[in-house]
Amino acid sequence: MSARQQMKSSVVLRWQAGSKPRRVRDELATEEPLEIQVETRPVVVTMRTPGNDAELAAGFLLTEGLIHQRDDIIKITPYPRNEAGNVLGVFLAPGIRVDFAQLTRHVFASSSCGLCGKASIAAVHRHFPKVKARLVVPVATLLGLPEQLRDGQDTFGRTGGLHAAAIIDSRGKLVVLREDIGRHNAVDKALGYGLLEGLLPFDRHLLMVSGRASFEILQKALAARIPIVAAVSAPSSLAVQFAAQSGQTLVGFLRGDRLNVYSGPQRIRLV
Amino acid sequence: MSARQQMKSSVVLRWQAGSKPRRVRDELATEEPLEIQVETRPVVVTMRTPGNDAELAAGFLLTEGLIHQRDDIIKITPYPRNEAGNVLGVFLAPGIRVDFAQLTRHVFASSSCGLCGKASIAAVHRHFPKVKARLVVPVATLLGLPEQLRDGQDTFGRTGGLHAAAIIDSRGKLVVLREDIGRHNAVDKALGYGLLEGLLPFDRHLLMVSGRASFEILQKALAARIPIVAAVSAPSSLAVQFAAQSGQTLVGFLRGDRLNVYSGPQRIRLV
Repeated sequence: MSARQQMKSSVVLRWQAGSKPRRVRDELATEEPLEIQVETRPVVVTMRTPGNDAELAAGFLLTEGLIHQRDDIIKITPYPRNEAGNVLGVFLAPGIRVDFAQLTRHVFASSSCGLCGKASIAAVHRHFPKVKARLVVPVATLLGLPEQLRDGQDTFGRTGGLHAAAIIDSRGKLVVLREDIGRHNAVDKALGYGLLEGLLPFDRHLLMVSGRASFEILQKALAARIPIVAAVSAPSSLAVQFAAQSGQTLVGFLRGDRLNVYSGPQRIRLV
Repeated sequence: MSARQQMKSSVVLRWQAGSKPRRVRDELATEEPLEIQVETRPVVVTMRTPGNDAELAAGFLLTEGLIHQRDDIIKITPYPRNEAGNVLGVFLAPGIRVDFAQLTRHVFASSSCGLCGKASIAAVHRHFPKVKARLVVPVATLLGLPEQLRDGQDTFGRTGGLHAAAIIDSRGKLVVLREDIGRHNAVDKALGYGLLEGLLPFDRHLLMVSGRASFEILQKALAARIPIVAAVSAPSSLAVQFAAQSGQTLVGFLRGDRLNVYSGPQRIRLV
């Protein structure tokens, strides 16, 4: 496993109260799609950190109940026409029959040749164009978000087991906070509230999440036209790339009196 | 949103070095499947925390690009024949055409009438029977796991952005540790290593994960015949239910000199 493959270097604006913002190099966990094919048939696309991909494919097929032992597999090999190395073919021993209908997750269409971070971003942009909101928020608004999130997390406080997503307006006022065991579900609920209440687009708003920022979180924010996304923890490489190409501001490690800006710093007044 | 629906009460064995184990009531974040149907066609099953399900469905369809505004939806209503309330039908306005092929996740088959935690567990048990390993490990082995995990997490240390999963043998020796941006992928990689190296079944082993323990983590452990699963953070309600019904030992909040045992305490020597 190559540590380089698992990380991507990025220049980030690091800010702490009382100091001037500094441009520093930061290491991001790599996020890229992987399509697993069995006998040339695509069975799943998962967002993963590259490295040990054959293990990932073998483990996925094992835990889905499709294969049971080492000898069930003849070969696991990257698809040669995908230059990004993000398509993997699994070939099974003669006599091993796979019941594709029992898979819990499926893919119909695949974009094998173009499957990479860039292609994933392009696919999203076909449906959701870039955001262009000229919103500017003071850094104080951002610094207040983690406390707002904690105050609103009724269930987390008692179970320690839920992710939270909150929509905040440009003056720092909470519009909605939702909790869920699944981080994407928490975001979907908050955005679904906006849709059902007729509040969309959220184009003068921020999305705050309690955990990490992945590609999918940024994609969901874009669908609701949200220009600023903030996370308590780290963003992935593809989240940063996506935010930059979508015109979104992305803030990570928002804790205490500090934060990192990964893209779109023009929307934050760092005073 | 009902806080009761979002939590389930459970009796747990709480242990801290220097004290006797105590049975205490603990609140778990509820995890249950939700199937979203559009015009009676199932489009996704997601594991979620009940509550605000209509928002979840609306947000999912919005962020998948299938609908765009409030008026696209006529009605969101629970499927009357699913008593658990885990199937939701979305009905769209006349003229709204949904391109199902563009969904990023799909479901073929569905088990609408039986869709609940119990049915999900039964579905897994059809492929993977209960574990019956008579393994007993001293509590000291468990207490050493978080440090082993941190020591092995090369990339996390530098990015703060990866989940880790480790397989440990009954004497506390690390067999394999894998990191990934996706918690399920980290587990799949560790188990896939076991399969490819001919080390399965892991029936004298522990699985340690850096985050929370969900239904899917326990299911994957069962597929590899792992009798003990330990997590740094909280388990979900369905993870606890699954572990109990699968004969698995489940440990949560494993930090410092303390831990909670949610099921199968007979496998841990609490001295």
